[in-house]
Amino acid sequence: MDPLRLRALLEEVQAGRATVDDTMAALRDLPFRALEFAHVDTHRHLRTGFPEVVLGEGKTPEQIAAILNELARGGGPVFATRVSPEAAKLVVPAVAGARYLATPRAVVVGETPAPDRGRGTIAVVSAGTSDLPVAEEAALTVELAGNRVERIYDVGVAGLHRLLAHRERIAGAEIVVVAAGMEGALPSVVAGLFARPVIAVPTSVGYGASLGGIAALLGMLNSCASGVAVMNIDNGFGAGRMAAMLNRATAA
Amino acid sequence: MDPLRLRALLEEVQAGRATVDDTMAALRDLPFRALEFAHVDTHRHLRTGFPEVVLGEGKTPEQIAAILNELARGGGPVFATRVSPEAAKLVVPAVAGARYLATPRAVVVGETPAPDRGRGTIAVVSAGTSDLPVAEEAALTVELAGNRVERIYDVGVAGLHRLLAHRERIAGAEIVVVAAGMEGALPSVVAGLFARPVIAVPTSVGYGASLGGIAALLGMLNSCASGVAVMNIDNGFGAGRMAAMLNRATAA
Amino acid sequence: MDPLRLRALLEEVQAGRATVDDTMAALRDLPFRALEFAHVDTHRHLRTGFPEVVLGEGKTPEQIAAILNELARGGGPVFATRVSPEAAKLVVPAVAGARYLATPRAVVVGETPAPDRGRGTIAVVSAGTSDLPVAEEAALTVELAGNRVERIYDVGVAGLHRLLAHRERIAGAEIVVVAAGMEGALPSVVAGLFARPVIAVPTSVGYGASLGGIAALLGMLNSCASGVAVMNIDNGFGAGRMAAMLNRATAA
Amino acid sequence: MDPLRLRALLEEVQAGRATVDDTMAALRDLPFRALEFAHVDTHRHLRTGFPEVVLGEGKTPEQIAAILNELARGGGPVFATRVSPEAAKLVVPAVAGARYLATPRAVVVGETPAPDRGRGTIAVVSAGTSDLPVAEEAALTVELAGNRVERIYDVGVAGLHRLLAHRERIAGAEIVVVAAGMEGALPSVVAGLFARPVIAVPTSVGYGASLGGIAALLGMLNSCASGVAVMNIDNGFGAGRMAAMLNRATAA
Amino acid sequence: MDPLRLRALLEEVQAGRATVDDTMAALRDLPFRALEFAHVDTHRHLRTGFPEVVLGEGKTPEQIAAILNELARGGGPVFATRVSPEAAKLVVPAVAGARYLATPRAVVVGETPAPDRGRGTIAVVSAGTSDLPVAEEAALTVELAGNRVERIYDVGVAGLHRLLAHRERIAGAEIVVVAAGMEGALPSVVAGLFARPVIAVPTSVGYGASLGGIAALLGMLNSCASGVAVMNIDNGFGAGRMAAMLNRATAA
Amino acid sequence: MDPLRLRALLEEVQAGRATVDDTMAALRDLPFRALEFAHVDTHRHLRTGFPEVVLGEGKTPEQIAAILNELARGGGPVFATRVSPEAAKLVVPAVAGARYLATPRAVVVGETPAPDRGRGTIAVVSAGTSDLPVAEEAALTVELAGNRVERIYDVGVAGLHRLLAHRERIAGAEIVVVAAGMEGALPSVVAGLFARPVIAVPTSVGYGASLGGIAALLGMLNSCASGVAVMNIDNGFGAGRMAAMLNRATAA
Amino acid sequence: MDPLRLRALLEEVQAGRATVDDTMAALRDLPFRALEFAHVDTHRHLRTGFPEVVLGEGKTPEQIAAILNELARGGGPVFATRVSPEAAKLVVPAVAGARYLATPRAVVVGETPAPDRGRGTIAVVSAGTSDLPVAEEAALTVELAGNRVERIYDVGVAGLHRLLAHRERIAGAEIVVVAAGMEGALPSVVAGLFARPVIAVPTSVGYGASLGGIAALLGMLNSCASGVAVMNIDNGFGAGRMAAMLNRATAA
Amino acid sequence: MDPLRLRALLEEVQAGRATVDDTMAALRDLPFRALEFAHVDTHRHLRTGFPEVVLGEGKTPEQIAAILNELARGGGPVFATRVSPEAAKLVVPAVAGARYLATPRAVVVGETPAPDRGRGTIAVVSAGTSDLPVAEEAALTVELAGNRVERIYDVGVAGLHRLLAHRERIAGAEIVVVAAGMEGALPSVVAGLFARPVIAVPTSVGYGASLGGIAALLGMLNSCASGVAVMNIDNGFGAGRMAAMLNRATAA
Repeated sequence: MDPLRLRALLEEVQAGRATVDDTMAALRDLPFRALEFAHVDTHRHLRTGFPEVVLGEGKTPEQIAAILNELARGGGPVFATRVSPEAAKLVVPAVAGARYLATPRAVVVGETPAPDRGRGTIAVVSAGTSDLPVAEEAALTVELAGNRVERIYDVGVAGLHRLLAHRERIAGAEIVVVAAGMEGALPSVVAGLFARPVIAVPTSVGYGASLGGIAALLGMLNSCASGVAVMNIDNGFGAGRMAAMLNRATAA
Repeated sequence: MDPLRLRALLEEVQAGRATVDDTMAALRDLPFRALEFAHVDTHRHLRTGFPEVVLGEGKTPEQIAAILNELARGGGPVFATRVSPEAAKLVVPAVAGARYLATPRAVVVGETPAPDRGRGTIAVVSAGTSDLPVAEEAALTVELAGNRVERIYDVGVAGLHRLLAHRERIAGAEIVVVAAGMEGALPSVVAGLFARPVIAVPTSVGYGASLGGIAALLGMLNSCASGVAVMNIDNGFGAGRMAAMLNRATAA
Repeated sequence: MDPLRLRALLEEVQAGRATVDDTMAALRDLPFRALEFAHVDTHRHLRTGFPEVVLGEGKTPEQIAAILNELARGGGPVFATRVSPEAAKLVVPAVAGARYLATPRAVVVGETPAPDRGRGTIAVVSAGTSDLPVAEEAALTVELAGNRVERIYDVGVAGLHRLLAHRERIAGAEIVVVAAGMEGALPSVVAGLFARPVIAVPTSVGYGASLGGIAALLGMLNSCASGVAVMNIDNGFGAGRMAAMLNRATAA
Repeated sequence: MDPLRLRALLEEVQAGRATVDDTMAALRDLPFRALEFAHVDTHRHLRTGFPEVVLGEGKTPEQIAAILNELARGGGPVFATRVSPEAAKLVVPAVAGARYLATPRAVVVGETPAPDRGRGTIAVVSAGTSDLPVAEEAALTVELAGNRVERIYDVGVAGLHRLLAHRERIAGAEIVVVAAGMEGALPSVVAGLFARPVIAVPTSVGYGASLGGIAALLGMLNSCASGVAVMNIDNGFGAGRMAAMLNRATAA
Repeated sequence: MDPLRLRALLEEVQAGRATVDDTMAALRDLPFRALEFAHVDTHRHLRTGFPEVVLGEGKTPEQIAAILNELARGGGPVFATRVSPEAAKLVVPAVAGARYLATPRAVVVGETPAPDRGRGTIAVVSAGTSDLPVAEEAALTVELAGNRVERIYDVGVAGLHRLLAHRERIAGAEIVVVAAGMEGALPSVVAGLFARPVIAVPTSVGYGASLGGIAALLGMLNSCASGVAVMNIDNGFGAGRMAAMLNRATAA
Repeated sequence: MDPLRLRALLEEVQAGRATVDDTMAALRDLPFRALEFAHVDTHRHLRTGFPEVVLGEGKTPEQIAAILNELARGGGPVFATRVSPEAAKLVVPAVAGARYLATPRAVVVGETPAPDRGRGTIAVVSAGTSDLPVAEEAALTVELAGNRVERIYDVGVAGLHRLLAHRERIAGAEIVVVAAGMEGALPSVVAGLFARPVIAVPTSVGYGASLGGIAALLGMLNSCASGVAVMNIDNGFGAGRMAAMLNRATAA
Repeated sequence: MDPLRLRALLEEVQAGRATVDDTMAALRDLPFRALEFAHVDTHRHLRTGFPEVVLGEGKTPEQIAAILNELARGGGPVFATRVSPEAAKLVVPAVAGARYLATPRAVVVGETPAPDRGRGTIAVVSAGTSDLPVAEEAALTVELAGNRVERIYDVGVAGLHRLLAHRERIAGAEIVVVAAGMEGALPSVVAGLFARPVIAVPTSVGYGASLGGIAALLGMLNSCASGVAVMNIDNGFGAGRMAAMLNRATAA
Repeated sequence: MDPLRLRALLEEVQAGRATVDDTMAALRDLPFRALEFAHVDTHRHLRTGFPEVVLGEGKTPEQIAAILNELARGGGPVFATRVSPEAAKLVVPAVAGARYLATPRAVVVGETPAPDRGRGTIAVVSAGTSDLPVAEEAALTVELAGNRVERIYDVGVAGLHRLLAHRERIAGAEIVVVAAGMEGALPSVVAGLFARPVIAVPTSVGYGASLGGIAALLGMLNSCASGVAVMNIDNGFGAGRMAAMLNRATAA
């Protein structure tokens, strides 16, 4: 609860303009609103530019559309992740201003903001073309949060020269998101070469002993290079949001 | 290779002051020095304040002492992690200016720098007292890299009021490192309450189905809150280094 | 075997109204009926109000309908769990008085009893909307067993204020069932805040390192809060039945 | 915050006996004390008889002794679990009134309360003699919380007649705690025979494919009998505490 | 190679009726025929009554039919396991004398032999009705190998009285095959009660932490009762074949 | 309960030599003794030659000695498995007639019976010399149960000629126990070559990806040869007991 | 960068025919082209006969066709692996000279080269007919790289005589690729018998505890025979490529 | 059996200089010696330079010494792997000409042969200094088999410039053995850069989610680069033996 509002309430009581009972009612929710209060802080911070997001997986098209419509009232861009093409065919017509991006499997409502809210650019790097859905989900999240993104795709460790060709874009990024499946070695190599903090996203690309992305996940967690932190398998959204938070102005 | 140096070489050839053969010899190593060149960039960046570190585990006390002595010539602080008390008894006397910190199990050489190299403070939060070795390893790493650290320990989810008592210190931190074992739920709760980016470190604290920290690791990877990235189990050093990198001035 | 019946048998022998051979025959089955005897005790206890249940998964619609019809002769409510919508279309018309509940995927036959058989209310709490099928399966089981249920859904740890808004309903419950997927942290938080016994149900909600609910399961087993016992993944029925048993009058 | 106290504060303001600033100061901590307030509720409930407990594992004997001494000031019984015999030799002399129980590996301070705080008795059942440390940890926890306990040990499924010999004690218990290692089948059998709610504790007894208790844990989670909820491997304390909570008077 | 045949060959050489070269040629294949020779022993043993079997899974209906037709020339019964209903519709018309058994998902060609080839009966026991496909695959294999089978189904540990009702049939069996999913406790209980050798088959019946039958498999491997040996998950055929081999006359 | 005893009781009542109350008391325990009765059957069967066994692991030397002394009163041979050399030094002097066998780590009391209780010989085969403790535990169990054993050791698949050199002894065995670590392929090869039923025991011999015997266990469970049933890792005793049970005269 | 080209550049500068600036521009990319330079070496080596390959899985038919068309311009044979029959129907008509091989699920463009590029023949051995897709993928890769291949299929360890019948072809091979599912024992046996280096490919053939090929993979990694190196599950292409590389002329 | 020997035997019979019985005796072992015969081929091949090896782990010092003494009679070098320093102190004095190499933990007897038996050099590459025991075990095996070895250590992916500095030695090697722990990315990078066949050895170096080398193992199995085959964790000997076999002259 805002201290000014609290003071006002008390002054009303003091001045006899409010009864104790009314003030009691106003304060009644204070204890359990305490966390909500903190949460409002959170929301305030988030609202300075982070778009609202809906996890489409496990929801019906009707549910996705309804939530998007409600969130879109707030004005800023909103989006839904993990929306299948079939679901998108039902969601997009039902939400004004919605469009479907097939690669990141996202339904987006509203304009992409100007990329002026972060300290620097965010590079999104992928090992192979099969990692694109995850990488694009990260890139989209980063862009919708008002960041400048550098997309550097298909530069896996089987041919390091491809990675080196982009070294200036990577070395110049504030944060680097790296998506890789199979052995998941790319984040280690990127962190070792460029000394930028890396948000690593293992992908489920691979077969057999890739164990649905577990091999890549373990590889990234055991990185011998400094500056690699890891997200859940295929969690491109989470990586993008983390990068966007890190690229924001400081807490102070 | 420094462009100025390359230009100088070519001008020497142009001017007839150097033979083609000598210049060939000077350039011979260019290809394989390319990465080294990039690496120098890296080192230059790193050298602006990150201390050198030695992984003590798997090395003999003699080896640890020798490497510390060599690294300490550079002047800045250096330290070794995962040094057992037994090994420390042999390492500390053999390295001038060395001291042993029992909780983070680290041997440190040199002064802790002034905490003036980051954008903000770094909060290090632990769920229980058993997580202290990991949390302190993170805090030490953060401090030796010139950051201001806020230690907030023993505030696990079984009694959230303990966490809330420190809400200002956490909400005011640039980056929050959270170490937790057992179910590893604290990073989710911290990220949900305070909207600061969280570097989560699962610890091997627990027994039975904690599987040596795997339960906490999985919990953190599946966090339902935004802004949680995860390190390897017990990797306090890695979390501290990541947080320090993120707290530094931008890449530009 | 009923002691009175045994005494009667012996008195018949004593009185010469029954031969030893006939009594031997009557007693012949005693050994293997011993457990059956115990089982009757069990059934008597169960029959005081727990509805019969059919696990629909792995049975044909014809089998489900046949078993429901047979069980429904007993008069009380009966239900089948894990019935797909496709199967339900065949089951419901084939069972008099049957209805399908889509969210818990259950076919119910008979009236819901008055909620007067337990000591108190049972709260069913879910972390997210995707956990609803499991939570509703638990709630349905609880209601059909004659308990008053408090449904408190979508109050996961990413926004604890939502949970706190319901604190009186949770703190006032005799038993709390908590269903959560992903990191499965909610049961720990609920147990820590409200000091009520928690029956925790991990759900398979999540992806990647959630490992089909294993992450949530491990999290709940490693809860740092007292008073959390765990069911199988997605076992809403089991949680509901356990809660109903615990809410019943005592063994005496 | 107590409503009466809040009303008093407001009436002081209203009456002009307190300034707004003082009242502001008094209310200042309200938001973040909200959870603490809830927590006091918790403590009040807990304090009606649950002993304080210290997890001895991972603490030095000095730490264990210090915490026990502090907790023991409260008067009621306190105890430390997972204390090795070596540690106990240092802890017991340092804590007035402390005694060591070798089987449950616990240091207890203070008298065992009268077993009058629960609705009924709690049966603690173990499959083998190797499960005794876990079973005794549960039984001790139950007793120190003021419950009457029935110990029924070494009645595993390889010889069911041993179990049946105790059927009245089990069928008459309010709650049954069952500790078993290896295949962990005993909770299913107990729940099937006696229809009492079972708190199942897998133990790490076994070798090879027992995987340190994982086999027993999985067996219990997949119980085909109703009324089995599961604790972490070897968590006798947790099972005892859960059983004691369930045996208490209702929430109302 | 038959010693008599070898002697004959040598005598031919000795008598000058065969050249060294011809004998060399005859002996040339001896080394690699050695194992084949042993194998013929094997076949001879097997041919005394074990039916040939085809693993239908992973083969086309055409392949299954072709192999069955070829094997059926031998006269004895032959069968194919793991044949889907769809495949069976194509296989049965293409093989003279073939019939499809839906529960064990098997195509059988030829008459079931008289049950006179074993020392005793073989009991096939299942925990639940969902285990029937596996149990029936075992029973069918046992019958086609000329054994008398006792089918005892749906007698899981949640209601042991059902099992006891069949105690004479089980105790009188030479070998007991037990199929169970979920926690897989039934083999332990059967072995403990009846002291007959048990071939345990875990089934993939269950969900969540049953891990596709791994929980049942681990439970059976860790059986605390003597006389339980374990097959692969869902391997009813293997269990039946093992039981049939064990029920045969001795090696001598 | 013995039928003769039951008849006697009834005749006493009939004859008026016993009161109904006394007979009630005598019969009172019938229901719960039912399983005990069955169990006596079991014991009678077992007692025809199976030695009593004590699992030494997890017991103190004093406990082992006490149990052995008690069991040894029965006259037949008894033994304890998994007894460390250190424990054996305390156990052997405390038990009359005890001797320690270092390889199978067993303490044996009493004479080895004549090998005349089985239908045929039991072959115990090991892949390597490191598997000897497990193989010898099986062989000892087999011998103490009155069977003739053929020991065939160190004949792993890396040199199949070693195995073939013993083909007559293996092909002539009634049952073959095969102990193997690492990839655990030997049971498949033995079953394929000799068509005798194989009790396979994976051992924990190996390192790295052997996962403490899990690799061998999985290999044996997936055997492509008929007639392989599997025991827990390192469970030589279990394999020996199973083989001995199978080698006994029939159930009839 | 080619040394001759570098010398030419320097001589141009020396002779005054090129400015320093132009030469700087020409050399500007040297550092990051260093790896590319190494990579050209790689390509040169590869281009001496290894066909280009496309991983079809995870690509649309359009993408596969486009890449094949582009690669086919190079003249040599190219192929795509893991192409479903459905996809092949769209790919083959869209690529001139393409044909579909159903068993290895590959689309091949161009002629198979003469088998004259290796030191010897490469044997491809499979345990069962279900392993054929993997074995044929390996054989195809080997042939398209210009090697002579010996296909030896369906010779699993359940009937070793089948394997021995081909001993000369295996013993005479330079490299042996062995594909096997289930327990994966065949590579050990082949390596033990024939002392040729074995590239082992576990397949996902099997069910239950085969864990999708993990059992076979672990078995091969733990081979007790020398000379077995292992590929990912179902990675026939990788095994073929490895064998082809090993069969090539030496590095010198 | 040697064809010449067989012919001689037959000619003796033909000439009447040997009886049929004696020849029968000589041939008696032919069938079961068939594999031995093949094995002799194997041995002959092996004996052309591969040293005999003893796995020291799991053997007593006395056993190791005895086997080494026996093997050393053959003249060539022999060695024992995985010998602890404690064991070595007992083994070395007991074997004439033995020496202990501490890093690879090996006892070697006899001279290292001249490195003239392979087609080219074998490079042994390690990621870190902690991988040295495994790398040195491989290098020692390679050298004792008569190969020239290039040791390139501590060149992990966190600083690729270190690897590139040795590019000529790696690119010039016939076979490259790469040992790496933690994320195990080095083999992929080496194979991608140098196009030489790589034998990858995961090591158990690491902690937490390295799972004792499983993370590195999975990473290597999922390598996105062609030409990587994998050995068991820490199996330096196996990698060295495989490399030496591959470096030998062809099978022909």
